[in-house]
Formats: sequence, C-alpha cells, structure tokens
Amino acid sequence: MATIKVPAQFSAAEDAERLQKAFQGWGTDEASIISILAHRNAVQRKLIQEIYKETYGEDLLKALDKELSSDFERVVLLWTLTPSERDAYLANEAIKLLTANNWVLLEIACTRSSLDLFAVKQAYHARYKKSLEEDVAYHTSGDIRKLLVPLVCSFRYEGDEVNMTLAKKEAKIMREAISDKKHNDEELIRILSTRSKAQLNATLNHYNNEFGNPINKDLKTDPNNEYLKLLRAAIKCLTSPEKYFEKVLRLAIKGMGTDEWALTRVITTRAEVDMERIKEEYHRRNSVTLEKAITGDTSGDYEKMLLALIGHGDA
Amino acid sequence: MATIKVPAQFSAAEDAERLQKAFQGWGTDEASIISILAHRNAVQRKLIQEIYKETYGEDLLKALDKELSSDFERVVLLWTLTPSERDAYLANEAIKLLTANNWVLLEIACTRSSLDLFAVKQAYHARYKKSLEEDVAYHTSGDIRKLLVPLVCSFRYEGDEVNMTLAKKEAKIMREAISDKKHNDEELIRILSTRSKAQLNATLNHYNNEFGNPINKDLKTDPNNEYLKLLRAAIKCLTSPEKYFEKVLRLAIKGMGTDEWALTRVITTRAEVDMERIKEEYHRRNSVTLEKAITGDTSGDYEKMLLALIGHGDA
Repeated sequence: MATIKVPAQFSAAEDAERLQKAFQGWGTDEASIISILAHRNAVQRKLIQEIYKETYGEDLLKALDKELSSDFERVVLLWTLTPSERDAYLANEAIKLLTANNWVLLEIACTRSSLDLFAVKQAYHARYKKSLEEDVAYHTSGDIRKLLVPLVCSFRYEGDEVNMTLAKKEAKIMREAISDKKHNDEELIRILSTRSKAQLNATLNHYNNEFGNPINKDLKTDPNNEYLKLLRAAIKCLTSPEKYFEKVLRLAIKGMGTDEWALTRVITTRAEVDMERIKEEYHRRNSVTLEKAITGDTSGDYEKMLLALIGHGDA
Repeated sequence: MATIKVPAQFSAAEDAERLQKAFQGWGTDEASIISILAHRNAVQRKLIQEIYKETYGEDLLKALDKELSSDFERVVLLWTLTPSERDAYLANEAIKLLTANNWVLLEIACTRSSLDLFAVKQAYHARYKKSLEEDVAYHTSGDIRKLLVPLVCSFRYEGDEVNMTLAKKEAKIMREAISDKKHNDEELIRILSTRSKAQLNATLNHYNNEFGNPINKDLKTDPNNEYLKLLRAAIKCLTSPEKYFEKVLRLAIKGMGTDEWALTRVITTRAEVDMERIKEEYHRRNSVTLEKAITGDTSGDYEKMLLALIGHGDA
C-alpha cells in the first residue's frame, strides 16, 4: 500500500502556476514545492509536467534542477519522474557507478512487476538509446553477470498457479547445488530468474520445510562474498520485498551519518507502491517508527519531503 | 514487404457469415475459406474471429479445426491466429517437441521486432500460464541454453545509432573468441544477444573487413556441430532474415518429399512482413520462382492457400 496522500481536488494548471510562482523572485518557496509535488500521484505529476512545459516553455525538471540543491533536489527530481523514467534513471546511474551499485539493478529487476519492469526497459531505450540489458551485460562480468543479466531480462509470469511437483523437484536441485557449494550453478540461477514469484515461493517454502533451513541461511557460508550477498538479496527481493527494503532503510539510517542516496531511492520508489508495509516492517524490526528515525537523521526541506512521501501530515 | 492482397471493401460480419455457410451441409467449401481468410490482414482476421464468436457462439478456430484436416488445416489455423498468438503457439510447440526445434525459437527470437517479441511473451503468459523464457530455459541445457535463453529474453534497442569504436572493439572480441575456438564464449553471446541490430551489423561488417572472412565462414569449422549451426543461424536471422528464410524454404521444398511443417511456418509468419523480399531472394538463389516451386511440390487446397498468401491471384 502506498503512503502518499492526494487531495480530492486536482488541477494540473493550478499546480503548474503555483510551482512557477514558487521559483520566482529571490529564493525559492520550498514549502510550496513540497505541498504540491509530494501530494500528487504519478499520473498527476506527469500532467503537471506537460502543462508546465506548454505554459512556460520550460521543462519542469530543468526548472527544479536550477532552483534546488543537494539532497532535497535529488528527492524532488527523482520523485517527480514517472516510475519507469525514475527506474531507468536509477539503473543508468547504477551502471555508470559500476560495481558498487549492482544492488540497485537487482532491486529494480526483482521487486517491480513484470509490466513495470518492461516499462523501465522502454524508458531506458527512449532515454539512453540503448537497452538496459545491453548496458548491464557490458558493465558486469563473471558470476555477477551470470546472475544479474537474466534477472534484468526476465518477464515473469504473474499468475498464482503453483506446480507443487515442480516446486519439490526444483527445491532439490537448489539444495544439491548449495550442498556442493556450486553457488553459481546455472540451474539455480535459471530457477531464480525465470519462475513466477508464486512458484518460487512454493519452491523456497518446500526447501525450508524439507531441508531444515531457509535457503538464505544456507547461502550465508561466507558473509563477505559479494556474489552470495547479491544472491541472498535477490531471493529476499523476490519473496519478501518489504523486508529487503526495511533492511536498506535500516542500514541507510543507522550509525554515524546517513546514506541519503539509498534513503531517497527507497522512499521515492516505494511511496506509491508498498511503503505502508515497509513502515510496519521497519517499526517491528527497530522498535521505532520510520517517521521518528527519519526525523532524527535528516533535517530541513529534505526531511519534510521524505516525511510527506511516507504519509506524514495532510494532503 | 507483405505479399497478401486485401480487398478495398471489408465487412467482418459478412465474412463471418460466409465462413459459417462454408462450414454447413455435407462437406466444406474450402474455396470460400481461402478466398476470405487468405485475403484479410491480422486486424481484420481478429475482427472476424470476434464477430464469429458473438454471432454463432463458437470459436472460429475450433470450427475450422472441426472442418479441416492435415496440412491445409495447419496453414489455415496458423494463419488465422494473430501474429503474437501464432508465435506463442509455434514456440510452445517447439518447446514440447524439444531438441529438434530450437530453430523455431531462435527464428522467433531473432527475426521479430523488439515490440513484436514482447507481444509474443505476453501472449505466451496468457495462453500457457508460464513465461516463454521459463520454458526455454527449463527445456534446454549446456551451450544451447547459454545461447538461446538470452536471445529469447532480449529486448533490443531499435534505433539506427551506431558506435563505431564499440563495433571495432567488439569485432575484435568476437574474433579472438573464434580464433581460440571458444565458440560458447560469454562475451560473444553477450554481443549477439544484447546489441541492437544496427550496432551488430556494424560490428560484423568490421569483422569481415578487418579479418578477411564473414563471421559465419569462420564459424563453419565443424559443419555437424548443432551449437555452431544455431550460432550461424542466429547471426543470419539478425543480419539478413530474408536469406535465412530463403534457406529454410529451399530445404523444405528440395529433394524427395516436402517439409510442410517448415513451409507452412515460414509462409504464415512472413506473408504479412517481408515475404516479398524472401520471394526475390528465393528466385535469385534457385532460378525458379517460389510460386513455381510450391506448385511443383504441393497440391489441392493446401497449395491454393500457400499461393494466395504469397500473393498469387486477386483479393
């Protein structure tokens, strides 16, 4: 469930006008920007962008880019994009930053719906004149490539049908690969990268019941192995995305300093999807609400924007 | 260019009525079926199917299935399907028949446009409650899987932009893999399965100019190796589909007996796409027109339907 709050009345023309006013004169009216953009859904934001362009002859994103800065700029820009444009942007950024950011690619490949992931691929074509899988394959190698490319390429079936005979068979295949320490086994990767989420869930439940451990426990033989970390993250994204995102938020917030890059990414990409569930999970796991954690770790307009996106205050 | 001829006037309701009449009484009026269906494009055939279902409460494909038989039945049924449903059907049939039919999967993966291939994947979900790549990955193994799965999964960029620096670099990578006899090299497969057709063409032209042979010549070290055959076919499908299809037709027609399975497949899948080019290529390569070759090798309603689809006679 989404957390953003959208008012009953909406006029793209009025919003565009208020935004344009917010940019005028000395300084910028950040409060107005938050009160408008943080409370509009993807379709509405797209309409505002179109009307803004028609009326003022300037791209709204470019105008925001000129007026804002730092973490607040990033959260507003990412949020304003449509989900598929935003994911295409994040994926391209991750590819350019190379190895450190395979997580972002994995997250996009494994937590979006099949059609949403396809929309990301179309947006990537349109913006970067290349295909997403082409860039991912080009910039990775070895086991990481073997895992990441099929995940990014996938177009999974999304029905609820489960074949239990197959689930048992494939749980056994996975178990054997893991017992033999063949963590890059091509059958293991085939199962993870092609089966529907419902089928995979049945397979992994059977794995747990039959072999005594959740699969991710059996995959924790070497906590520092980058490939194994990605493999576990893929399984978590595919079966319990809210737990995966809770952990990303937890690590982004905890300790000295904040990882604003991850915090902004998770909140802008999930606010219209399953942020309500992620907040519950966060509260359960950390005994503090996500609101409180964000308030403690961020400040100013950036803080206000994040809080608005996770449902704080009124539309 | 397509070969089918469509009349200026079209009424789905009239067509549905004429088809229903053709099925009635003792025997079937095959001439009417050909005169209608062979001269309607994909959108029109879909409309006729919808109206037929509404009016007579029966699926048109089921009715055709009851009335017709053998090669004529197959060509009419395959043709009547929409292109994406037809490809999904052919792919599923190929998967069930296993190893002998990797060609069909390869052909679908490499000769359809990116959006058409995506439509096949959607049709596959809808009809078989599974994903195409899931079935292909499950039913293949070894080098064949390594090649076929990424080809089937691809969603290539389709712009004309070419990066010549990259083309030179990747031609060299391919050359080195082939010189070392590493025909299943993952870089080689990455390039073939992810680059746009325009980019790939530039790379392979550079390969030819720089290293003295077309790549397919260098890949002909062992004429009976199944993997190498598929690799060469993939390259042909991606760069000169009309030559690939000409060869499939040539082999289907030549010698004793005819491979109706392949003949029907190529004609039904290309009649609305590039059959005109394939006919030219066939004539050039065999010094006989495709019409003549088909007339010599087939007969009856099957022959009439094939000839109508490749543009013989009037709409």
